[in-house]
Amino acid sequence: MTAELSIDTLAADHTATLDKALETIRTRAYWSPHAEHPKAYADDGRAAFEALREKRFELDQPGTDGWAGSEVSPYGPRLGIEYPHADPDVLLPAMRAAMPAWRAAGPRHRALVCLEILKRINARTPELAHAVMHTSGQAFMMAFQAGGPHAQDRGLEAVAYALAAQEEVERTAEWSKPQGKREPLELTKEFTAAPRGIALLIGCNTFPTWNGYPGLFASLATGNPVLVKPHPRAVLPLALTVRIAREVLGAAGFSPDLVALAAERDGEGIAKSLALRPEIRLIDYTGSSAFGDWLEANARQAQVYTEKAGVNTVIIHSTGDYRGMLGNLAFSLSLYSGQMCTTPQNLLIPRDGIDTDAGHKSYDEVVADLATAVDKLLGDDARAHALLGAIVNPGVRERLESAPRLGEVALASRSLTNPDFPEATVRTPAIVKLDGAKPDAEAAYFSECFGPVSFAVAVDSAEAAVELLRRTVREKGAMTVGAYTTSAEVERLIQDACLDELAQLSLNLTGGVYVNQTAAFSDYHGSGGNPAANAALCDAAFVAGRFRPVEVRRQA
Amino acid sequence: MTAELSIDTLAADHTATLDKALETIRTRAYWSPHAEHPKAYADDGRAAFEALREKRFELDQPGTDGWAGSEVSPYGPRLGIEYPHADPDVLLPAMRAAMPAWRAAGPRHRALVCLEILKRINARTPELAHAVMHTSGQAFMMAFQAGGPHAQDRGLEAVAYALAAQEEVERTAEWSKPQGKREPLELTKEFTAAPRGIALLIGCNTFPTWNGYPGLFASLATGNPVLVKPHPRAVLPLALTVRIAREVLGAAGFSPDLVALAAERDGEGIAKSLALRPEIRLIDYTGSSAFGDWLEANARQAQVYTEKAGVNTVIIHSTGDYRGMLGNLAFSLSLYSGQMCTTPQNLLIPRDGIDTDAGHKSYDEVVADLATAVDKLLGDDARAHALLGAIVNPGVRERLESAPRLGEVALASRSLTNPDFPEATVRTPAIVKLDGAKPDAEAAYFSECFGPVSFAVAVDSAEAAVELLRRTVREKGAMTVGAYTTSAEVERLIQDACLDELAQLSLNLTGGVYVNQTAAFSDYHGSGGNPAANAALCDAAFVAGRFRPVEVRRQA
Repeated sequence: MTAELSIDTLAADHTATLDKALETIRTRAYWSPHAEHPKAYADDGRAAFEALREKRFELDQPGTDGWAGSEVSPYGPRLGIEYPHADPDVLLPAMRAAMPAWRAAGPRHRALVCLEILKRINARTPELAHAVMHTSGQAFMMAFQAGGPHAQDRGLEAVAYALAAQEEVERTAEWSKPQGKREPLELTKEFTAAPRGIALLIGCNTFPTWNGYPGLFASLATGNPVLVKPHPRAVLPLALTVRIAREVLGAAGFSPDLVALAAERDGEGIAKSLALRPEIRLIDYTGSSAFGDWLEANARQAQVYTEKAGVNTVIIHSTGDYRGMLGNLAFSLSLYSGQMCTTPQNLLIPRDGIDTDAGHKSYDEVVADLATAVDKLLGDDARAHALLGAIVNPGVRERLESAPRLGEVALASRSLTNPDFPEATVRTPAIVKLDGAKPDAEAAYFSECFGPVSFAVAVDSAEAAVELLRRTVREKGAMTVGAYTTSAEVERLIQDACLDELAQLSLNLTGGVYVNQTAAFSDYHGSGGNPAANAALCDAAFVAGRFRPVEVRRQA
Repeated sequence: MTAELSIDTLAADHTATLDKALETIRTRAYWSPHAEHPKAYADDGRAAFEALREKRFELDQPGTDGWAGSEVSPYGPRLGIEYPHADPDVLLPAMRAAMPAWRAAGPRHRALVCLEILKRINARTPELAHAVMHTSGQAFMMAFQAGGPHAQDRGLEAVAYALAAQEEVERTAEWSKPQGKREPLELTKEFTAAPRGIALLIGCNTFPTWNGYPGLFASLATGNPVLVKPHPRAVLPLALTVRIAREVLGAAGFSPDLVALAAERDGEGIAKSLALRPEIRLIDYTGSSAFGDWLEANARQAQVYTEKAGVNTVIIHSTGDYRGMLGNLAFSLSLYSGQMCTTPQNLLIPRDGIDTDAGHKSYDEVVADLATAVDKLLGDDARAHALLGAIVNPGVRERLESAPRLGEVALASRSLTNPDFPEATVRTPAIVKLDGAKPDAEAAYFSECFGPVSFAVAVDSAEAAVELLRRTVREKGAMTVGAYTTSAEVERLIQDACLDELAQLSLNLTGGVYVNQTAAFSDYHGSGGNPAANAALCDAAFVAGRFRPVEVRRQA
């Protein structure tokens, strides 16, 4: 092997990390090899990010037939970067041609190459943080952590699942079946975890790396080339990722074309045509339910993994830490202006109020106290900007602006000006009161209102709350469910509902862990069993269909 | 627990078998706990089978609104058995209601119950053999082995995969994330492998148990109730299975309604309406591509596992054991009159002939010698009946009768009379010569001709054979691929084609293992990666989607 990155080098560098990842997906304890704090990195990444702007982003991939790109930061400035536009009739055959050697390398070699890609991505976390910030509108620290180490953790998690699943298949066996007094029947068998074909990653606007890396690395680690089709407003984080992946693949002696970018021109909508290409055998998608459902229904030649819209519920029944609960919820509603698929939307509160360590609180008091907690959390402008980031697109702003028409406003959204980015749209969350018993309220709380709007829904009882939770998860889907209760009986009802309807439940969070955050190696993101997503990050099912067991048996 | 079958009893009886099954799906060595020989069983099952005839088959399941059944043995006699016809509006809610207790039992308890079901099924193998014989038309010994121990092996294999997959999920974790000088963030997490919902098993005519048990046991072991909808011509084997399962479930303290039967009236077509019910979250299907494709496209609320039609190829390039090759192929073509989804259809032979240990053989010689080998194998009537069984339905007979119109007949099908069952339709296989270079021949060899018809397709070269193999697998699908070659280069080409197109390959079989037979725990049946099937029996992907990981996390 004349490759710059030999398998021995890769093994020496990454085996310990890989083994730890394989162990941790079993123990589900806390672990991450990727530092969370900016000070752990060499620089602040700003210069590298600025150097990319107003330029062509060269990738040297086959079939480039022009240039595309029109990203404008939610913080104001246009990025001015143009990316290669690909002719799929040239690019896809090149990607397919790269497959046999990648397959032949075997699962462990592939995993080690993926870990080298992740290591180099990790080293450029600060640069990627700026790229994520200026495409998603996340505040810098969130872009840094969620777009950097946490996304890398999810990628590594996918590699570990992929390796474990493939190693269960890849083996040889000597099979000998006794035949009484006759000679046994004997066969030599060889089993390969064979990749399906080219994977298409359809990226999203809000979490291009965090939501992109699981599918990217799951497909690549299982031997499939990956074509990365970023959201047109969030190309840069994935373009940087593709560049690093191509560099590592080449250095490891494989074709760089195992990972390629498909940027698109304004309004081109290439996801739809790419998704139907016969060469595309795997699709990972994060985004609207409409397009996710379309992919599932139409891209029948591919395995389709989707994360779509849902309606997340928190049941507020009772608590032993009223102040902690309010603070925790206020943070969850505010983080990234509620623009997370995991942000709670419907807060179900008994109309008779709730029991707390601070005495009984009426429905109105709970809502008012939550509004106050949000106000307090965001009272300091610097802290507010660090939490809220910017509104990612006009659709979110419009939904927020129409929210007061839906019911009584318990907390009005405020507009803030970010001194560093005066063009950014910055808004605090709104809370709207709705009566769950009134049929006309259902139109509001029973559909996703993506952005910083939540509904304080008055319900008749804990049982009514659980029933509404069930119906919401079953019909609308949910990425997260939260609940606060001191009653073992109510807890059991909620838990049963989540087990029946297949939703992830966080109970009585009052500290520094929030319902809208999940940690790789330990928490599942989505369940894949309700309409919000057809896959969970990350479990065996997320990787098992990306390859197929192929057996060659010979008479011994 | 007041159950007759306590978990301790079950564990004492089945833990060793379960452990061995879990070990063997990893080693993929030969193993079976189910005796293959009739003499290992208490009786010949005939009396038990006869006692079922001309009666109602009582199941005592909810929602029975009438009786249905019109099975006629391919060997002639009508069975005269009526089965409960179910009202799904009553039966499905009862099944769903049985789910929480079954889920709460946990993966190991469920696996042990499944093993008790399999043990009792195994004890009634002789009775089931008659049931399979008189619904599928298989010869008795094949019905005994494939319908009995081999089917039970596949069921046990599915239970082992299901348990292994769930045990990777079901655990608790104490999660502690360091926070520098502050207290760590701490959560207690509980992970459940939660079942999706009711599973629908749509059985087939030819292998009701062998093709039915994997899905049935995979779904049940992962916590899902299973509604069994047998093929209307092959109800009895699955009705017996359902009865045994209900008996064991009840004895183990669970609701018998976790497994129920949905028999149908003539022409009722209930598979279609059941498949679209929102309660149905899993579907296993074996049968025509038309209905399998319909299920995949329309039963969008369910995970759909299909085994459909394909076109199986054997490349005959060269051999070091000409006589062994001919004998092996003759057996494969004859077994159960070619009515197996794994029977070779297209035999690709270079038009210049092949090199063998018996000298060079021209294309015509190879075909003639194979025809002779089939004739010789079936020359003895008793042996012929023991191999051929009966033609399962008029469609197969009609296809066979039209085969001579497709090309030059190298081996004509003969009609035999089974002295025990003079009404049975018994036919020997036909071999038809086709020229692969002639476009008009493609219509014949490029579609499935299910039954005892194979095509000796003359091809220009080994490379042309491999190219046709690739195209056939990619466009038509294949459950099996066979090849004979002494050339390492040709072997590599064929192997690469199978890895690229995701098909299972048997190389140079000349002894007592046949391309159309696979052994549970070791051989994969289908790959799930080409159009013949979207699932393999049995791998992690076959079970991983039948449950979803659900997490409950609490502040510690």
